[in-house]
Amino acid sequence: MITEEILKSVFKPHNLKWRTAITKVEPNRLITRGYLQEELVGNTSFSDMVYLLVKGKMPSKSESKMLESVLVSFCDHGVTPPSTQSARIMASTGSPLHACMAGGLLAFGKNHAGAIENSMHLLQEGVARTPPEESLDDTARILVDEYMSRQEKIPGFGHRYHNADPRAPRLMELAREMECLGRHSELALSIESLLHKSKNIRMNIDGANAGILSDLGFDWRLGSGIFMIGRLPGILAHTYEEISRESPFRKFFHIEEIYYDGKE
Amino acid sequence: MITEEILKSVFKPHNLKWRTAITKVEPNRLITRGYLQEELVGNTSFSDMVYLLVKGKMPSKSESKMLESVLVSFCDHGVTPPSTQSARIMASTGSPLHACMAGGLLAFGKNHAGAIENSMHLLQEGVARTPPEESLDDTARILVDEYMSRQEKIPGFGHRYHNADPRAPRLMELAREMECLGRHSELALSIESLLHKSKNIRMNIDGANAGILSDLGFDWRLGSGIFMIGRLPGILAHTYEEISRESPFRKFFHIEEIYYDGKE
Amino acid sequence: MITEEILKSVFKPHNLKWRTAITKVEPNRLITRGYLQEELVGNTSFSDMVYLLVKGKMPSKSESKMLESVLVSFCDHGVTPPSTQSARIMASTGSPLHACMAGGLLAFGKNHAGAIENSMHLLQEGVARTPPEESLDDTARILVDEYMSRQEKIPGFGHRYHNADPRAPRLMELAREMECLGRHSELALSIESLLHKSKNIRMNIDGANAGILSDLGFDWRLGSGIFMIGRLPGILAHTYEEISRESPFRKFFHIEEIYYDGKE
Amino acid sequence: MITEEILKSVFKPHNLKWRTAITKVEPNRLITRGYLQEELVGNTSFSDMVYLLVKGKMPSKSESKMLESVLVSFCDHGVTPPSTQSARIMASTGSPLHACMAGGLLAFGKNHAGAIENSMHLLQEGVARTPPEESLDDTARILVDEYMSRQEKIPGFGHRYHNADPRAPRLMELAREMECLGRHSELALSIESLLHKSKNIRMNIDGANAGILSDLGFDWRLGSGIFMIGRLPGILAHTYEEISRESPFRKFFHIEEIYYDGKE
Repeated sequence: MITEEILKSVFKPHNLKWRTAITKVEPNRLITRGYLQEELVGNTSFSDMVYLLVKGKMPSKSESKMLESVLVSFCDHGVTPPSTQSARIMASTGSPLHACMAGGLLAFGKNHAGAIENSMHLLQEGVARTPPEESLDDTARILVDEYMSRQEKIPGFGHRYHNADPRAPRLMELAREMECLGRHSELALSIESLLHKSKNIRMNIDGANAGILSDLGFDWRLGSGIFMIGRLPGILAHTYEEISRESPFRKFFHIEEIYYDGKE
Repeated sequence: MITEEILKSVFKPHNLKWRTAITKVEPNRLITRGYLQEELVGNTSFSDMVYLLVKGKMPSKSESKMLESVLVSFCDHGVTPPSTQSARIMASTGSPLHACMAGGLLAFGKNHAGAIENSMHLLQEGVARTPPEESLDDTARILVDEYMSRQEKIPGFGHRYHNADPRAPRLMELAREMECLGRHSELALSIESLLHKSKNIRMNIDGANAGILSDLGFDWRLGSGIFMIGRLPGILAHTYEEISRESPFRKFFHIEEIYYDGKE
Repeated sequence: MITEEILKSVFKPHNLKWRTAITKVEPNRLITRGYLQEELVGNTSFSDMVYLLVKGKMPSKSESKMLESVLVSFCDHGVTPPSTQSARIMASTGSPLHACMAGGLLAFGKNHAGAIENSMHLLQEGVARTPPEESLDDTARILVDEYMSRQEKIPGFGHRYHNADPRAPRLMELAREMECLGRHSELALSIESLLHKSKNIRMNIDGANAGILSDLGFDWRLGSGIFMIGRLPGILAHTYEEISRESPFRKFFHIEEIYYDGKE
Repeated sequence: MITEEILKSVFKPHNLKWRTAITKVEPNRLITRGYLQEELVGNTSFSDMVYLLVKGKMPSKSESKMLESVLVSFCDHGVTPPSTQSARIMASTGSPLHACMAGGLLAFGKNHAGAIENSMHLLQEGVARTPPEESLDDTARILVDEYMSRQEKIPGFGHRYHNADPRAPRLMELAREMECLGRHSELALSIESLLHKSKNIRMNIDGANAGILSDLGFDWRLGSGIFMIGRLPGILAHTYEEISRESPFRKFFHIEEIYYDGKE
């Protein structure tokens, strides 16, 4: 006789294999975070969708606009980033488009896009340990002193190509206009003010976006994810440019530029 | 006599290693496709940027809105897609976020997101060989007959989970509203009409977006790239859900579910 | 009456999700292709294992030695290959080791390691369509004429750095010594003889290994897989060299080497 | 007039772009770590090459044999590892071989292959802080106490499928036979002895190989790299099995196995 035990044991292997609160898939019906997909399409912006997917609820109008500005600010930095170089090198070998784009993302290590996560972490910890009624200037000073005494760079400040990254002040200005500038951005601005005076170092795009994304309530572990969403179109454009304008399997370096210092 | 100019010109190929028409990088100045980045940020939508980066010029308002709808329609399909499964499996191993997202994209093979490229290719060839003044119904009939005689599925039609993919008619409706529905979408609709009558098969999201992206002038080789841009937020959301809700290194399959049919 | 057996059989497809003939995993017991793993360890060479895993049986002694030579021949080509460059660029960004090594493999596109698959495909088709008692010289001539008339390069011949790739004759010599030189290698040698006379082009490492691997009975679709196994140690060595000898996030290109030819 | 300054400035951009001590590439000549490649092919084993490439010198005969056993021991673990699952899922989507193999490696996160690095790190630190004349039993005891008090698992001990991983004692036995068992393996054995008594936990493959690789002088940061070299043939075999035996784009999970607990 089939008992409850037997039934349960038969079905056990495929119980609760996957659990998700993001999208419900039924035949002819897709519900994402409570919304029918056919109602989302045409009625929501791309940044609404990013916010909805990741945070589980719709952003306000200004939050959505702010997030869109963040995404747009990550768009492209020519062929200088290692992610773009990797994607183009792969495209040159005839690797398919999806592999080139994946390859581009693999170059988002802690020294590249990782900076934004570290910057968010720093700002979120700084704000968390400052009582809400107190100014963040003291927190900024302590942080700057800490990093300086360890002779470390503060993530989100300084840029290897720009003395004054033009994207950072623009983003801060927008955050102010859209009333999205909160405690985390304030702390970033306070740090910048100290670094600028003492070392002529300014906030870069990572620092600005770290402040804004933290003010929008994003977990610091999502920072490089948002960066990747913003940068993927640039990586696509470069992959396509490589395929359509350059000869396949070109030499990115001349043999004369390579210095061998091993055993002969 | 050898002048500095001559010397420089001789070594020019060495110096100009990289060529790009996408973004000019100068200290404190970034120009993308002719626009200063600080002017793009806050003034352009994300879909504007995708269009600008890839096609080199700004879209019209309706083109931008249409592309945004395409991107949003790709947002997520729960945990059924292999790309999402791969990203979550990697996240479970403790692989970092950027590696999980790259890993998700590696699952966009020709049977997954590849369908959109094949569908675009098919529609672009079909429209190209039909004189502009002629109806596309004959072209549709020839295509359907060709695939049926080879017993192949036409890319962009039919879905393994949906008999009637709810996203496709919504996208067609929007394309019509925004006056973005051109010859490629017409061909797709004509194919659907034949397939629906004879085999009860309908257009899926790939077919709808293949028509729309082709009408927007995108090279078919960019199809899966646009899909990846649209889906990356979903992959981020799932990676984050895996990290934040599930135990690390969980077993995705029970050992009892594995059948060994090799040598003992 | 519904018994436990019937119930189980009904739900079987759910339970046996995965099927494999490679390794049986039981608690405290691992059987690979019929061998207990603890008996393989210490008694079989690495190339035995590659052969056993992929082909399902143990190689002969000379087959194993031949495959080992193939693997060793793929070891490294300095920093000229795009796969090595990609892995190092990623390492420089602080991406973790496993992501750098994966990134290296993503650069094995059809113009890089893909050549070996194309070469294997060509040789396997050439041998298949030549009756066993006939000489392969005519087949070689037809192939060479075909490619020349299409002005295409024959995969496996010619090298962008070497006029006479030193690895190819060495591999052919070893194949002869180990009595592993069969019809596929003969065809490759016959093609080389024609190309050498008419265009001073010689067999490269891909051509030599394509012949040998085909003679060892490997499906052409496995060619780049074997290449990757052979090259992964080189990619590891370079990734480690980048991490241990170079400064993090170094600039691989100077901004002056980039030529912008887009809109200003 | 061309001065030294002018000359230097012209040549500056391509000075010292790449530096390597691994392989020298000259036309028709390849020297790896001081050896001509055509002399390595046929005369060295695969494990010799791994050792030579990574450590810059040839191993002794027993070191080479030991490393080969380590590599073989990593060969395969059926379809239970996330790396194998990822590679097969990607293969099912029609992603090309090199992308599937790269995808497999992306699942080598800190909970999967990362354990070997952590185990090496632990053993190397433990040995370094124990004076050479002293027994490692005290060090083992301190380490075990530390981990137990933090309620953490010690990397290299315990296995989610095996109570007694059959590969570990076999590897220790071989190390003893080949006189490759040094202080790091001794520490690992000492830890095992304590864990076995108190918690019935034994050394796993990662712990055994962590000890051996440390005794062979490998930097702990190379641990997962060696693992990946050993496992890549298994990933190739599985990718090929998926392509050749299963239907493309099969469903790895049934829709009924997915539990949606989000907003309706």
